[in-house]
Amino acid sequence: MAEIAKDYQQLPKNYLFREIKQRKLAHIARRPGVHVYDLGIGDVSLPLPSNVTNAMAQKALSLEYAETFTGYEGSEGGVELKNRIAEYYHALGADILPQEIFINDGAKGDCADVQTLFASGTTFGLQDPAYPVYANSIILSGKAGEVDNNGQHKNIVYLECTEENDFIPDVPKEKIDVIYLCFPNNPTGATASEKTLKKYVDYANDNKAILIFDAAYSWFIRETDKPKSIYEVEGANTCAIEIQSLSKAAGFTGVRLGWTVIPQELSAENVDPGEINQLWRKRQQIHFNGPSNVAQAGGEVILSPTGLESVVESTNYYLNNAKSIKATLAKAGIKSWGGVNAPYVWSETPTVDGKKLSSWEAFDHYLERANVIATPGVGFGPSGEGFTRFSAFGKSEDNDAAIKAIVDNLQTN
Amino acid sequence: MAEIAKDYQQLPKNYLFREIKQRKLAHIARRPGVHVYDLGIGDVSLPLPSNVTNAMAQKALSLEYAETFTGYEGSEGGVELKNRIAEYYHALGADILPQEIFINDGAKGDCADVQTLFASGTTFGLQDPAYPVYANSIILSGKAGEVDNNGQHKNIVYLECTEENDFIPDVPKEKIDVIYLCFPNNPTGATASEKTLKKYVDYANDNKAILIFDAAYSWFIRETDKPKSIYEVEGANTCAIEIQSLSKAAGFTGVRLGWTVIPQELSAENVDPGEINQLWRKRQQIHFNGPSNVAQAGGEVILSPTGLESVVESTNYYLNNAKSIKATLAKAGIKSWGGVNAPYVWSETPTVDGKKLSSWEAFDHYLERANVIATPGVGFGPSGEGFTRFSAFGKSEDNDAAIKAIVDNLQTN
Repeated sequence: MAEIAKDYQQLPKNYLFREIKQRKLAHIARRPGVHVYDLGIGDVSLPLPSNVTNAMAQKALSLEYAETFTGYEGSEGGVELKNRIAEYYHALGADILPQEIFINDGAKGDCADVQTLFASGTTFGLQDPAYPVYANSIILSGKAGEVDNNGQHKNIVYLECTEENDFIPDVPKEKIDVIYLCFPNNPTGATASEKTLKKYVDYANDNKAILIFDAAYSWFIRETDKPKSIYEVEGANTCAIEIQSLSKAAGFTGVRLGWTVIPQELSAENVDPGEINQLWRKRQQIHFNGPSNVAQAGGEVILSPTGLESVVESTNYYLNNAKSIKATLAKAGIKSWGGVNAPYVWSETPTVDGKKLSSWEAFDHYLERANVIATPGVGFGPSGEGFTRFSAFGKSEDNDAAIKAIVDNLQTN
Repeated sequence: MAEIAKDYQQLPKNYLFREIKQRKLAHIARRPGVHVYDLGIGDVSLPLPSNVTNAMAQKALSLEYAETFTGYEGSEGGVELKNRIAEYYHALGADILPQEIFINDGAKGDCADVQTLFASGTTFGLQDPAYPVYANSIILSGKAGEVDNNGQHKNIVYLECTEENDFIPDVPKEKIDVIYLCFPNNPTGATASEKTLKKYVDYANDNKAILIFDAAYSWFIRETDKPKSIYEVEGANTCAIEIQSLSKAAGFTGVRLGWTVIPQELSAENVDPGEINQLWRKRQQIHFNGPSNVAQAGGEVILSPTGLESVVESTNYYLNNAKSIKATLAKAGIKSWGGVNAPYVWSETPTVDGKKLSSWEAFDHYLERANVIATPGVGFGPSGEGFTRFSAFGKSEDNDAAIKAIVDNLQTN
């Protein structure tokens, strides 16, 4: 008799962005023809540079001819792309070799799969709030342990990100085996300095812990004391895995491309140096045949000097949106954070009729009153209660109109 | 202290095709300039039809313009592609709805991930020999149980495929919870009749077992009593998951596209009807953001009437290769199976100097004597010992030259 894993049944009822989509559709059904502005999900709106689309088209067309046709690229991705990524790290002053790079189809898969490396009984540290994929994948794999009345799991340590700590938690006092860090952060937009990251790297090396560094938003960093890669920090190669994505950098949310770095020196309690890199390689050989060759052809252009220039251009556009969101909120007396080195603005929920709204109340209020979608902070974890995430990935005219509609409709009367 | 999952360390030392690649490179290093024919790995050699490459190029180019740019397609893939796949099933006489289809990036990922659905303690039935991904993913997830001296695992039941049963095992006598079936089979090329599959479907429904049906090679079926989909068999919708791939059908080994079907009616011991479909949907939302939009654009053309015609053309080409391999082996007095509804020919290892070679001895002999790579049958499981898998995916001139070189060099003197 086939039996479904009970871990599957422990998952939250609905994935956050699915819940939002359902409420949006219900709203539109109630008000046919209404225009809803979406500052919720982090999907990009700018199209791709022509040199990237041309390279992908050329790769696609080359598959028509026997002389230029190519099949399997291998489960680790193409050599040329890995070389370009190694150069990208070199330019940042980080030491990463091509054989330490595993090309993936965007960060989500590896963010969810990387926990499979670790033994059951591992304690995982997560920023609270955080991208829901980290916790959900740990729950799904059966490693999260028992859940309490607050929905918190025994084997997960929740590192609170609050106004008091500028949404960057200090290194934990207790021993945690594996810590997920996302900087620039989704959802708060907080971005860690070199000094903060160094404390985490030292903590990890001192405690033989491993950091999972989600660097998907590094492309938005403008302040020079904020590292774009964990490997810019001394000592990180022995304790950190980095996961990257071209989704937000280069508009690849639909094309799908990213990578994961597992350094040769990465060490853990029960393995020899170099072994984790080799074990992940085997895991990829079993689970993955590489991302689409067409996507890889586009990625090679993005990692070229002209490609990296176009990344700066498109991320500047979104950073301007973020600036505009922050300015409009500030005028209305609503505090906000992030949005400086990040495409997300984290804002307190407003007080309406003398009552500070909860995250979902603010969601409903913005949708009802202003026809704007914004992500409820509590969807990213309990410490997100009382906050809203605004995504700056829209077209600038929509972005500005949406945030104006929100502040114009803050009062119920 | 981070600790690596011990399941990772239970994996076979080397993935089969990686081992083959290493021996091939060593051979070339010993004989610089030698031309090695590869009848080993199942990578395709024919280029893609122009309507497919044009559709992909057009999709890539459309991403340059704001009006036609698209982002996330969703973790289940695009609606249009799902509709075409549902039509594909309808044409086979199978009842599959778009919401039962989950687009993936080729069969490998889901073949490896699908076991996550099942509780620990599940017994898995595998054909022996079989595609190594099934067993390796079960081992990696920690569900395989203890391993004995023969490398066999406690929670895996090995269904022997032998000359006596025409490489199609009868339904098991014992109760097995989840059974992987691959027809047309990789590696043996054996293809099950409707009658055989009906016995498996009845077994599964009677025992509340679930079948995982790997249909990646269905595109090669020419005999009309052999179903291309498990859902052509009455009763399959309540007990079978089907995994498909366009890799071998349409030359998509590098482009990456396939799908998995989880019927609404699929049932298991501890869930309500419809629940497994919903749980897999949640799982995909956590682990996957859909395959590349460019690949999906190509897939839509393949699933169109002209696209399906080109699939028949390219699979005919490979079936001709298989026929040629079988004819040449037969002339040399070497028995072979498969290759009729399948791109793989399964052949007994030859007797050289009065000694029947083992699988790896035959591998070395073919490589040394004829400069041909063929896959050792034992690499697919213990029952594959004494056999070799020849892949028919080469160019026909290479295919014929390679198999001729093998039979011309069977003697050592």
